[in-house]
Amino acid sequence: MKRVVVLTGGVGGAKLVLGLSHILPQGALTAIVNTGDDFRHLGLHVSPDIDTLLYTLADKANAAQGWGREGESWAFMAALRELGGPDWFALGDGDMALHVLRTHALMQGESLSQVTARFAARWNIPVSILPMSDQPVATMLDTDRGRLEFQRYFVEQRCEPAVRAVQFDGAAQAEPAPGVVDAILSADMILIAPSNPFLSVDPLLAVPALRSALEQTAAPIVAVSPLIGGKAVKGPTAKLMGDLNMAVDNDSIAHHYAGLIDAMLIDSGDRCDAPDIAIAHCATLMTTLSDRMRVAQAAIDLAAGLRG
Amino acid sequence: MKRVVVLTGGVGGAKLVLGLSHILPQGALTAIVNTGDDFRHLGLHVSPDIDTLLYTLADKANAAQGWGREGESWAFMAALRELGGPDWFALGDGDMALHVLRTHALMQGESLSQVTARFAARWNIPVSILPMSDQPVATMLDTDRGRLEFQRYFVEQRCEPAVRAVQFDGAAQAEPAPGVVDAILSADMILIAPSNPFLSVDPLLAVPALRSALEQTAAPIVAVSPLIGGKAVKGPTAKLMGDLNMAVDNDSIAHHYAGLIDAMLIDSGDRCDAPDIAIAHCATLMTTLSDRMRVAQAAIDLAAGLRG
Repeated sequence: MKRVVVLTGGVGGAKLVLGLSHILPQGALTAIVNTGDDFRHLGLHVSPDIDTLLYTLADKANAAQGWGREGESWAFMAALRELGGPDWFALGDGDMALHVLRTHALMQGESLSQVTARFAARWNIPVSILPMSDQPVATMLDTDRGRLEFQRYFVEQRCEPAVRAVQFDGAAQAEPAPGVVDAILSADMILIAPSNPFLSVDPLLAVPALRSALEQTAAPIVAVSPLIGGKAVKGPTAKLMGDLNMAVDNDSIAHHYAGLIDAMLIDSGDRCDAPDIAIAHCATLMTTLSDRMRVAQAAIDLAAGLRG
Repeated sequence: MKRVVVLTGGVGGAKLVLGLSHILPQGALTAIVNTGDDFRHLGLHVSPDIDTLLYTLADKANAAQGWGREGESWAFMAALRELGGPDWFALGDGDMALHVLRTHALMQGESLSQVTARFAARWNIPVSILPMSDQPVATMLDTDRGRLEFQRYFVEQRCEPAVRAVQFDGAAQAEPAPGVVDAILSADMILIAPSNPFLSVDPLLAVPALRSALEQTAAPIVAVSPLIGGKAVKGPTAKLMGDLNMAVDNDSIAHHYAGLIDAMLIDSGDRCDAPDIAIAHCATLMTTLSDRMRVAQAAIDLAAGLRG
């Protein structure tokens, strides 16, 4: 059985992981997930990217909304507003169960990876989901409105501030979560999901021992580009690249991952002229489950070709 | 303006406080509330008697159910169950807002009385609501199934275990919350709501400086009996009295409060032969708002008569 590791962030990444989970045998896939977006809100430990992946793989995700649970209700938020509580971050009634149970488990000394594994097992998720680290790493943005926590930038300010730099507080001291380094070193291939390279993948790469493992592993590393026709399917990737004075194209993505990746999968209509990496094409827009399986298969085929 | 203090516990007490709030001028009434039922559940600080009073006075209480919010929904509990979380204590979606905001405020160093006052102000509640103490006091029951926290006995085990003794852990070290002693010493009359004397009122009396203030105050103290025809309207009062080998009658209630109360208001059809206290009658079943106002007025009249 080929062992596949995928590095992933939020919604776009979760789509690829879902596609992979449908074409790989049970036990073959490990997802290493960004936790730089994690934050404490009202005393609750919220892990947005882990939750998106859990909901997606458990078939509970709200497809139309792009985050949270399908069929969610909002009585908690209504009551919170009545009491003058902060309402800039939406916490659905069902979603609260994850946050409350996770926060309680962490308070009782369980690690983020342990509680994540417990939720995944409970929902019969056939993918090993590992947070990049059990220690706190906080994605911080230097913007024209000051230094912002990720969720303040992303949710409260809807990515409007111009970003000058991105930092990952705590990353330099963070250890990869148990199993992360082993998964990378024993993988037959490593995929980087089409998540935001600067906000969703870079936090993983900022954890020193995680980056070292990627540099040491013999497995080919293949990135799936988050751009289609010079635009991001969702989220602030394209705007952020503009803020950071990059051309919004695959060459910039390849340059960003230079020295790390062996190949990149890009959309059928796009090009990439980066030297030293292999390029393959595929229709990368993932709307349906079959889209997700197609992109997953193309990424696996690209990686498998590199090994031969 | 006459200043009235009422000592109160859960549902029955909240009904009397609501009646009092309708017949007294704004600012006249202070409710001192049992916190012996408070507990941590899933990391959240739950204050059942304070919440019942807040919901009742804000006209948000679920009248049929007897606890929680009117029009409550239960998506959180459904999701909690899915994840294998404990479901013996029901937390409604809207109700969660109180618990989450309170827990967060306490973590940030606010006191229970400060956060309670903030919620009451937000809902324009015209009653000063004071927790009996800002320090933890835990009502514990020695039963034939072992030593149980109050909520385990009351909710999880539905008051089924036979109670041998009741203790209030922490009470001997607890200080009354700010304002409690002043309110008692400056009151023109003090009422004890028809809450469970052993589980809802005794915790207050177990706080030494609170009990001392009641013993010192010149104001008359009037209890409203929780029994009607030898039965409690709601809750485990009668069963508990049986467990503790008391006759289930007003003489036992009067005996329990002996040395503390000057008078007792009992139901029209009942009697009380306790020496040394005044007795007045009234239909004490509180179904409608006008019932609550009638009982409140009768208690006030009884106390006012004692002063003259």
